[in-house]
Amino acid sequence: MARGMVNALKKSEVLALLRESGPEYVSGEEVCRRLGVSRTAIWKQIRALREEGYAIEAAPRSGYRLTGVPDRLYSREILPGLGTEFMGRSFYYHESLDSTNREAAKLAGGGAPEGSLVVTEEQTGGRGRLGRGWFSPRGLGLWCSLVLRPGISPGEAPPVTMLAAVAVSAAVEKVAGVSPGIKWPNDILVRGKKFCGILTEMNAEMEKVNFLVVGMGVNVNTPREEFPPELADTATSLLQVKGEKVSRQELLKQLLREFEALYRTWLQSGFGPVLAEWKRRCVTLNCPVRISTPRESWEGWAEDVAEDGALILRFPDGSRRSFVSGEVSLRTRD
Amino acid sequence: MARGMVNALKKSEVLALLRESGPEYVSGEEVCRRLGVSRTAIWKQIRALREEGYAIEAAPRSGYRLTGVPDRLYSREILPGLGTEFMGRSFYYHESLDSTNREAAKLAGGGAPEGSLVVTEEQTGGRGRLGRGWFSPRGLGLWCSLVLRPGISPGEAPPVTMLAAVAVSAAVEKVAGVSPGIKWPNDILVRGKKFCGILTEMNAEMEKVNFLVVGMGVNVNTPREEFPPELADTATSLLQVKGEKVSRQELLKQLLREFEALYRTWLQSGFGPVLAEWKRRCVTLNCPVRISTPRESWEGWAEDVAEDGALILRFPDGSRRSFVSGEVSLRTRD
Repeated sequence: MARGMVNALKKSEVLALLRESGPEYVSGEEVCRRLGVSRTAIWKQIRALREEGYAIEAAPRSGYRLTGVPDRLYSREILPGLGTEFMGRSFYYHESLDSTNREAAKLAGGGAPEGSLVVTEEQTGGRGRLGRGWFSPRGLGLWCSLVLRPGISPGEAPPVTMLAAVAVSAAVEKVAGVSPGIKWPNDILVRGKKFCGILTEMNAEMEKVNFLVVGMGVNVNTPREEFPPELADTATSLLQVKGEKVSRQELLKQLLREFEALYRTWLQSGFGPVLAEWKRRCVTLNCPVRISTPRESWEGWAEDVAEDGALILRFPDGSRRSFVSGEVSLRTRD
Repeated sequence: MARGMVNALKKSEVLALLRESGPEYVSGEEVCRRLGVSRTAIWKQIRALREEGYAIEAAPRSGYRLTGVPDRLYSREILPGLGTEFMGRSFYYHESLDSTNREAAKLAGGGAPEGSLVVTEEQTGGRGRLGRGWFSPRGLGLWCSLVLRPGISPGEAPPVTMLAAVAVSAAVEKVAGVSPGIKWPNDILVRGKKFCGILTEMNAEMEKVNFLVVGMGVNVNTPREEFPPELADTATSLLQVKGEKVSRQELLKQLLREFEALYRTWLQSGFGPVLAEWKRRCVTLNCPVRISTPRESWEGWAEDVAEDGALILRFPDGSRRSFVSGEVSLRTRD
């Protein structure tokens, strides 16, 4: 284990040197001198980096140069220049996981600090809200979970999901140049199709949340034909909307920055500013909607969203009713 | 594992036969015949039962008879004649555990059904509310946790703790003949000292509780001198109040029965009937109290408790305020 740590450190150091010299070669001799290790040791790290997908040219007299980085969510690709204080600072990367939420909850139960991030290339048992699944194919999306430890009671937790929806929307806007809309309570859409789901779970006493896990699944580069048939009509990805690939690395970085900024705002100034931003992006406000719960459904005018996240519907007779859960659809003329 | 199961079964069967014959001897020959095993096999089970604390006399010509059962919370002492439908039906007994809540949460996460019970002779890391500890010495108390899966939202969970307080109070009243009082929100007292603590924890999505774990710690037979000095003034046990030992086995059985009945009432008829029972036992209503939160403290008249468990104080100017958490103390004349 300790040996593994040492090796990982060296690998990152070798990579840092290669990055530093940009498109130029850096000589093996210089790498040895600056890292204080043998040429054999360097060569071992170069090979290990190549195995991880880094393209590194080795020229007999010139040395090494970096010609390509892998499309992986390695911490060494995300943390440099990230600029957050705590979001993503404890970084848990996996090639494959059943569910990032499950892993994050396990880590949080063992004391993982606020802002701990679990990210994986694929989920084999990705979960959505209310026991549904979440399609999470390898290398095509952002499947990640954050551990939060706000000092709140369980009833104060629902805004976190809305905060996450704003963070994802803002990050997508900046990185992909696409402006998503939020469908109450927390689906994120482009062109009327869903490309992101959020699943917030908590571990709590009656008076106090021990920790929250916010899971976010973003369909980034999933080609249309990869989706299972039952999702084809309702799901999309940034690739499908843009017509070109979007950097998952840049998206994750920006997401962590947006999330940290919004989270700070929430804890320091209350939910008002975050809610305002949420409303600005919401596509299910000020329009006629139908809301369905397992037992009933109502049609009305989506008038507002309250501080606790409840959707307020106004009915033709002027009465109002607020909903804390349900499936919303826009009403269109038949 | 399969072999262990077979042995455990045989042990219970041997014990059942011994119980059946009451104070009379049952011949080894009869045991062999009725259970269809050899005398050597019987003798092995008798020895195993003795190791678990059962007193079994073996007389050369007469056979065996049971002269004493151990003061342990074995499932085979609790389940026969229990009469509940689901509370305690999945029974997890441990000689020692760090925390029954932690173990129950682990089991619930793995799918343990509603009513699953974790019970232990001692907790090495017993926990109370808000990160406090809970003194749980070996063999002297009831340290147990129940898994519940009501179909509710996180905000609807707090009544469960009040329900547990009523269940413990009712069981103690019936088994020990002592009438406890409940101090808001959920301490249970006799003669002004605490003998039971309740810690409810939950695992939830924002809209839906996945499971609740209700941990109950009851100081049953803890002698005064066993308590750590810092607890001596505020803690007590049923032994101290009664002046004699109370059966932990009978108490656990009655607790499971009371809990199941109250839980059914809650789910079928709402919290009203349980709350009425809670109020009847409450010692912090209709009296002057001081309530302290980490930041402030108030003095007022404890007028009522709302359906969600909030304590409603009336102040001298007639205004009212409700509290969802805080430490309450009775105000007495100086």
